[in-house]
Amino acid sequence: MEELNITPRTLMGPGPSDVSFRVLKALSTPLIGHLDPQFLKIMDHTQKMLRALFQTENKMTLAISGTGTSGMEACFVNLLEKGDKILIGVNGVFGSRMVEISERCEAEIYTVTSDWGKIIPVDEFINKIRELKPKVAALVHAETSTGVLQPLEEIGKVCQEMGTLLLIDCVTSLGGCPVKIDEWGVDAAYSGTQKCLSCPPGLSPVTFSDRAMEVIRNRTTKVQSWYLDLTMLDKYWGSERVYHHTAPISMNYALYEALRIIFEEGLEKRFARHKRNHELLVKGLQELGFRLSSQEGHRLPMLNAVIVPDGIDEAHLRKSLLTEYNLEIGAGLGPLKGKILRIGLMGESCTPNHVELILAALRNLI
Amino acid sequence: MEELNITPRTLMGPGPSDVSFRVLKALSTPLIGHLDPQFLKIMDHTQKMLRALFQTENKMTLAISGTGTSGMEACFVNLLEKGDKILIGVNGVFGSRMVEISERCEAEIYTVTSDWGKIIPVDEFINKIRELKPKVAALVHAETSTGVLQPLEEIGKVCQEMGTLLLIDCVTSLGGCPVKIDEWGVDAAYSGTQKCLSCPPGLSPVTFSDRAMEVIRNRTTKVQSWYLDLTMLDKYWGSERVYHHTAPISMNYALYEALRIIFEEGLEKRFARHKRNHELLVKGLQELGFRLSSQEGHRLPMLNAVIVPDGIDEAHLRKSLLTEYNLEIGAGLGPLKGKILRIGLMGESCTPNHVELILAALRNLI
Repeated sequence: MEELNITPRTLMGPGPSDVSFRVLKALSTPLIGHLDPQFLKIMDHTQKMLRALFQTENKMTLAISGTGTSGMEACFVNLLEKGDKILIGVNGVFGSRMVEISERCEAEIYTVTSDWGKIIPVDEFINKIRELKPKVAALVHAETSTGVLQPLEEIGKVCQEMGTLLLIDCVTSLGGCPVKIDEWGVDAAYSGTQKCLSCPPGLSPVTFSDRAMEVIRNRTTKVQSWYLDLTMLDKYWGSERVYHHTAPISMNYALYEALRIIFEEGLEKRFARHKRNHELLVKGLQELGFRLSSQEGHRLPMLNAVIVPDGIDEAHLRKSLLTEYNLEIGAGLGPLKGKILRIGLMGESCTPNHVELILAALRNLI
Repeated sequence: MEELNITPRTLMGPGPSDVSFRVLKALSTPLIGHLDPQFLKIMDHTQKMLRALFQTENKMTLAISGTGTSGMEACFVNLLEKGDKILIGVNGVFGSRMVEISERCEAEIYTVTSDWGKIIPVDEFINKIRELKPKVAALVHAETSTGVLQPLEEIGKVCQEMGTLLLIDCVTSLGGCPVKIDEWGVDAAYSGTQKCLSCPPGLSPVTFSDRAMEVIRNRTTKVQSWYLDLTMLDKYWGSERVYHHTAPISMNYALYEALRIIFEEGLEKRFARHKRNHELLVKGLQELGFRLSSQEGHRLPMLNAVIVPDGIDEAHLRKSLLTEYNLEIGAGLGPLKGKILRIGLMGESCTPNHVELILAALRNLI
């Protein structure tokens, strides 16, 4: 079989984002065992950095050994038992996926929907929580399929008041804009490594409040996934260090280094950088005649959903960007297929140079 | 947080095994997208090499985006529906884990047990298949916790005859001794990358026969795991290329290179190397007064379970190997905790030099 010989790309899609050479170097560190004292120390330090990133004191903060969707599944299968009530906000691919996973947990599912590209109306969602008193309320903080940022603070307050567990998807937002788990009253959250953390895909940072863990420890049925059972993962990541599965050592090296880079920059500076380059991109896109499709005032800085102008073949445009510029951007998904382009500015891919490049390429191609 | 600064180890435990610098280099290849034509080509070529490794024509042969246990779970949750009959051979940790996962599928579970360190008696298992006519019969081909190699050929014939699906765990055997999926009549198998493939942990190669896929496609209920649902994974790994989850790109680079290395050596030569070094190790261990704990005639070449001699503190011995020699070996698990040591000779860790090193270190320490 031929040698691995990759033409490098500039990654400006919905993830993976560009990865620092420091993280690539960390990946190539020789392997050690998953119970080696050196690895246990890496796990401890990773947990500390993940807590700082999630802005939480949650003891149960760790990286699930799978991609973002495995972290998503971990949240749902641990929190839900058959017949439990869950309220889900659905305004894109990842809200829909929450429903699909909850169905497989045989939960009693209620939804508040909104047009793709708009937020879930906060009042409507809150009213539904008061009315239904669900065990879990789930929302996508950063809907990667539409570029929308969901406000959570008020919802968090009501969830705390009603005893509802608030579960959020922050796959795309974590590390690129504020995600304040404790301040907002979030009980469970999952993310991915390949977005604003600029680490390769393959791990899913998650965090669970003590309240959520108590619910999990008091389940009457076993978690339907053995691999994702948090009570067992707790024994491996916690002080007992009981073997559960063989952790992906190399990916954990990468995450460790990616987190170090994040804290060298500092969260506030990092968030400001994402905001600044987003504004630069939007300005440039507008000058080229593009309009954003996501609701104004609720736009993600790291994922820009752009309406495909009339007369432009978007598949051809993306192909030209890839073949002529080695530049990857994302297509629309679901009902937005063919209608939008998704331009990511995540982590290492969020620089003025990236903005200049995509604008220049678009200018030449349209 | 301090820089990642790992003291290298020689890995002679139950996995991870030593990884070639070529694989470490592949890991550090810059990222591309999970739908990039270059990545899709890597997936195609990986599938081809995995089929050759599993010695199968199964179309549905791919790497699950998680560690070996996720591949294990993928097999059980896809093949089993609530109330389905399954017969499981239990003679170690991984047979017990099969039972635990099947319980979470609410299957009707039957077991044939055997002492840890002995094979599951073939006749007894076959008689049970004839008697119970289970939907699935599951066995661990290479029981990593005991060092036992389970004969499968006769059982495979009876499963084919009875219409029972034969499911095997070949996490430790794949790439180190023959695993003949088609010839033996195996319908589903899962493995890991960190054993005889000498690739870091993080992916789980699996293969499913057409017969198994037909059963899965005709399920009356949805697979309880969305992440591991093979009907959806088939659409991503198959020709449709429908986005399901973001594949762990770097890990797939590593697997690609690890498989290339395997086929450069050739399967027969590789299996012979594992056998040869195993024999060398056993001879040396016997000269030092050690005895193997696994059943004679059914010993794994790549995982050697050694009885801890009287008067030796095994935890102290393992610690000395790690601190004085940077040499990792494995402890006993479950009922064998404190009673055996597990010495791995897997992939890159299976060389005469590795054998010399462990023997010299043991000679000095006991």
